[in-house]
Amino acid sequence: MKPWKRLARRTVYDRPPFLTVHVDRLELPDGRIVEEFHQIDTAPYALVLAETPAGELLMMEQYRHGVGGLCLSLPGGMIDPGEVPEAAARRELLEETGHRAEDWRLVQSFVSMANMRGCTAHLYHARNAVAVAAPDSGDLEEATMVALSREELRAAIVAGRLPIANILMACALWLAGF
Amino acid sequence: MKPWKRLARRTVYDRPPFLTVHVDRLELPDGRIVEEFHQIDTAPYALVLAETPAGELLMMEQYRHGVGGLCLSLPGGMIDPGEVPEAAARRELLEETGHRAEDWRLVQSFVSMANMRGCTAHLYHARNAVAVAAPDSGDLEEATMVALSREELRAAIVAGRLPIANILMACALWLAGF
Repeated sequence: MKPWKRLARRTVYDRPPFLTVHVDRLELPDGRIVEEFHQIDTAPYALVLAETPAGELLMMEQYRHGVGGLCLSLPGGMIDPGEVPEAAARRELLEETGHRAEDWRLVQSFVSMANMRGCTAHLYHARNAVAVAAPDSGDLEEATMVALSREELRAAIVAGRLPIANILMACALWLAGF
Repeated sequence: MKPWKRLARRTVYDRPPFLTVHVDRLELPDGRIVEEFHQIDTAPYALVLAETPAGELLMMEQYRHGVGGLCLSLPGGMIDPGEVPEAAARRELLEETGHRAEDWRLVQSFVSMANMRGCTAHLYHARNAVAVAAPDSGDLEEATMVALSREELRAAIVAGRLPIANILMACALWLAGF
């Protein structure tokens, strides 16, 4: 199966690294032309499933503006220019939770959106995460760190406390044993 | 915890239902001002975990432009104006796979992105899905319908064949028993 071919691109909004919007003119493999197809670039990020020695998952209860309310979230954040994704994952875990872990594994890299793309992000699993400092995220959101057992996480999902696609994706993968 | 307060909004790009981009000026609960915070509106959609009587999951192998290659995807699509989400889920399942099911359940509603929002989308689980027609999606992508066992789906995830956040979220929830 051949990829779609980009014939032309107009960049209609450009505020890197936050958001860039392109309108592409595309040719499909069967020769059809698509006059307007949006692609967006957002900042690449790393997301962390950090498990304590007791097998609990470190999460943050915090306000997220995309939800407009309080929800459960995971440590993670933008990858700095020149930084490799795993280094960003380790840095964000330390900044946001004060925890360090030595056993790191890439679970999955993924794109935000099937059509518009967004960015490629990277999900890590870190085991034996232990507290070494106080959290100091510098983020806009105040956060309360919590550690959830598998059963508590299941109940939180059923209760609708994880209403964000990538966070729910990560936690469901963890519960399913990935 | 109080929500962030929007003080002003500029809409910098507007092509509904595909993409609208707003730049908001916000006030945080502690009084700090955020001069530029992006919010985007994308088209609300429904996504379907459709299970056959044999307990296999209906998926589509297709090119997705956000990935730039072939991947495994789920039936689903934009909710039409005035359409309720479950009706969109039933319609998309029929159009994209030729299947009907009678046993429907909302698994979860979710937003695309933690900060920029995107849209609220709705994930349904449909059981006993049976073929009643030939697929006729009208989509830009050619698709091959496949039915995967739980073991085949696990192997496909490990092989990186589900690289899109919302699709992976849905399938991991299914594997975890939600």
